[in-house]
Amino acid sequence: MTSEPPGPSTAAPPSERVRLRRKRERGSYERETIDAILDEALIAHLGIVDGDGQPLVIPTLHARSGDVVYCHGSIAARTLRTLAAGAPVCLMVSLLDGLVLARAAMHHSANYRSVVLIGQASSVDDPDEKHAALRAVVEHIVPGRSDEVRGPSESELRATAVLSIPIVEASAKIRTGPPLDDEEDHALDVWAGVIPFATTPGAPLPDPGLREAIEAPRYVTDYRRPGGP
Amino acid sequence: MTSEPPGPSTAAPPSERVRLRRKRERGSYERETIDAILDEALIAHLGIVDGDGQPLVIPTLHARSGDVVYCHGSIAARTLRTLAAGAPVCLMVSLLDGLVLARAAMHHSANYRSVVLIGQASSVDDPDEKHAALRAVVEHIVPGRSDEVRGPSESELRATAVLSIPIVEASAKIRTGPPLDDEEDHALDVWAGVIPFATTPGAPLPDPGLREAIEAPRYVTDYRRPGGP
Repeated sequence: MTSEPPGPSTAAPPSERVRLRRKRERGSYERETIDAILDEALIAHLGIVDGDGQPLVIPTLHARSGDVVYCHGSIAARTLRTLAAGAPVCLMVSLLDGLVLARAAMHHSANYRSVVLIGQASSVDDPDEKHAALRAVVEHIVPGRSDEVRGPSESELRATAVLSIPIVEASAKIRTGPPLDDEEDHALDVWAGVIPFATTPGAPLPDPGLREAIEAPRYVTDYRRPGGP
Repeated sequence: MTSEPPGPSTAAPPSERVRLRRKRERGSYERETIDAILDEALIAHLGIVDGDGQPLVIPTLHARSGDVVYCHGSIAARTLRTLAAGAPVCLMVSLLDGLVLARAAMHHSANYRSVVLIGQASSVDDPDEKHAALRAVVEHIVPGRSDEVRGPSESELRATAVLSIPIVEASAKIRTGPPLDDEEDHALDVWAGVIPFATTPGAPLPDPGLREAIEAPRYVTDYRRPGGP
């Protein structure tokens, strides 16, 4: 599940707001790197500001499709209405690849891959794009699933808000590799290294109401994430 | 890794801002539930608002200790300085327990446990509390580790900002169980159920510079999360 470190990014930061100020060697502005992290992550965290200036963070399912990230929710959800009205948004995905155990307390860290995307969301109202976006969200979490399930009805579509965030102001941040201890701490009698982590699927749990003749499809029994183990 | 559903919460929401407005049956305001989720999560997401009203989401390591959540970073980090100055903050942790595959596209969902905590952070400046907070963060990610490693030096402490967020305005949200399809969709010839997920540790990777005589301690070889598999 670990990746190669991005190395010096050849792409320039698309804006001052997403330029990495600290630990710049961990940053990347390459779309290929950004897209791979967006595609592997199952959950995104949306940052918004409510009417009183209070920041809120909301976990959501998402899907990248070309140059945008889609997410969706009930049209009754206040936060989605705020975003659809053009409020600034921050979408963050993070993948935990390992815990980094250094010899010194202060050098403990995590190996991770994250993407931050900021900008404005827009409401997807065109019926064809709305259909495609919702299909993309299902395909994002379970590739191969969309063609088998019942698609959204007219009333389901009306009750659902779909947001689109363009991938313009985005950056990736990646930490890989062993702990970075001070030279003099290498003499300490302390184990140091990385505990790698993976998000692994278990055996599928059939719905208790499932008709017996229906077997779990290959995309369920062989489920794995892109980039996953 | 799945939990019992919280059931109707007997605790009242501590504020209107964290009261669940949608899918209220998934909410809990019980400290025991909130604490267990904060303790199991390895990564927290901090939501802040920058000077221009732009929301930002930052992944961070954290630790709950009694009635507060600690996080830390370089004193040079602009976002931490903003928070230490009393800006409003939102801390979110989320644990993905499974993907919920319904017979209808629109009923696809995720099983998860999340906590949202909002309020104001304060800077931890008392040296004893600062030490204890940094120790709590190491113990949070690797229980048993703190006593073995080199503790923070005076200059490391000075270079580190520690924030404390009181667990006052907090709520948990939990989804468990099978998909919730419309009755008429049960007749469809589509597999439905849950793909459970777990964040699982792999075999430890010793630091390339590790002295050969040092074996990995039990808390590394037998690593598991509280509440984990």
